[in-house]
Amino acid sequence: MAEKEKLTMAICSGDLERALAAFMLAVTGASMGMEVKMFFTFWGLNIIKKNEGGIKSKGLMRKMLNFMNRGGSKRLKISKFNMFGLGTWMMKRLMKDSNMPSIDEFITMAHEMGVELIACTTTCGVMGLPAEEDTFRSEVDSLTGAAYFLGEARQSKVTLFI
Amino acid sequence: MAEKEKLTMAICSGDLERALAAFMLAVTGASMGMEVKMFFTFWGLNIIKKNEGGIKSKGLMRKMLNFMNRGGSKRLKISKFNMFGLGTWMMKRLMKDSNMPSIDEFITMAHEMGVELIACTTTCGVMGLPAEEDTFRSEVDSLTGAAYFLGEARQSKVTLFI
Amino acid sequence: MAEKEKLTMAICSGDLERALAAFMLAVTGASMGMEVKMFFTFWGLNIIKKNEGGIKSKGLMRKMLNFMNRGGSKRLKISKFNMFGLGTWMMKRLMKDSNMPSIDEFITMAHEMGVELIACTTTCGVMGLPAEEDTFRSEVDSLTGAAYFLGEARQSKVTLFI
Repeated sequence: MAEKEKLTMAICSGDLERALAAFMLAVTGASMGMEVKMFFTFWGLNIIKKNEGGIKSKGLMRKMLNFMNRGGSKRLKISKFNMFGLGTWMMKRLMKDSNMPSIDEFITMAHEMGVELIACTTTCGVMGLPAEEDTFRSEVDSLTGAAYFLGEARQSKVTLFI
Repeated sequence: MAEKEKLTMAICSGDLERALAAFMLAVTGASMGMEVKMFFTFWGLNIIKKNEGGIKSKGLMRKMLNFMNRGGSKRLKISKFNMFGLGTWMMKRLMKDSNMPSIDEFITMAHEMGVELIACTTTCGVMGLPAEEDTFRSEVDSLTGAAYFLGEARQSKVTLFI
Repeated sequence: MAEKEKLTMAICSGDLERALAAFMLAVTGASMGMEVKMFFTFWGLNIIKKNEGGIKSKGLMRKMLNFMNRGGSKRLKISKFNMFGLGTWMMKRLMKDSNMPSIDEFITMAHEMGVELIACTTTCGVMGLPAEEDTFRSEVDSLTGAAYFLGEARQSKVTLFI
């Protein structure tokens, strides 16, 4: 049997529109029979962070960064015209009107279609996040570093940095 | 005859400098004999939106988003140091001094060199834009979705997410 | 002897976290035996600009842009939650705590591992920078244009736009 073609993405941004673009491509790729891996790093970690509070960061600096940057799929904002939330609220309304899934729905959908969600361990530290399974949603498959991403990228038909 | 090598770009950003980078690569690629496709999505749609007003969005939300985010090649801003337009104005002056084409000129040039300009239909809705030919400049070749982009990317020598 | 697989990156952003991501991948790629090229353009030029002052731009516009946007590896900021420097300061503290190299250390490290650092000449002009060796740190290997980048990208196993 022929091996599946691979689509590998590094998601460095936590902007709502970039997260949406990544998941649209992931779900589309999976439906086209590709093997899809999403590697979340830096602000991208916000997308797959648990929405509930209760992440226990050690150290004052981590606690402060975590407080400022609470993250989670429901708190992502658009990168322009956020206007204290108005722009993001409007885009979310338009997403509903256009029958576009929310990020939460996209995560579930991607997970169910076999898309692999991976948290970058190397950057957890600088984002004030404990590099532990408990920090992330249950749909996250593994925690690993930059070498893993590059190893995948080398074997991929399409690699995107988002 | 050998097939042309492909360069495929997804342009998700509407920042002036990223738009310029995309068009420089498109025009350079075409001049090197590559088959170039530019797929505009989310804020990237602003780049190829008609500069004249008169886009008739249906619904209050779409109208508001369209009002806030008027878009068009002439309204793109740099992502840093915009300073109420001063930074963007200065960069545009320096572009002229350096004989760098404007975005408008780049669009015409790319189109004439056979670069394909494609608007993403899936994201028109959430950007408050009607997914119709009439929304975009005449240089835009087609309107299509994420599956088309991925199909092209799979056959491309170089794929970039900008 | 087999040729080395290539990793080519265009770095268009000067955000601290994107610069870090690029260097992590560069250093990891080099340690995996890949031939790595980093092509700095637009705000990315800030990363490899000399930290010391004394860049003599000609013309008022260039002088002003250079004054506003002083750049250099030590002045990079995170793209969100900068909060007048507090967020960036905190991330730098966390980088130290996590034993992550600074951008300066990454540049030295990458250079010593044979990663090629390239400044884009085409965009120097619009960034108010003289397209001369003297503008950039000594680790920068060459100054060249978009055609060189695309030529490399065509031969690369992995190409990223950051």
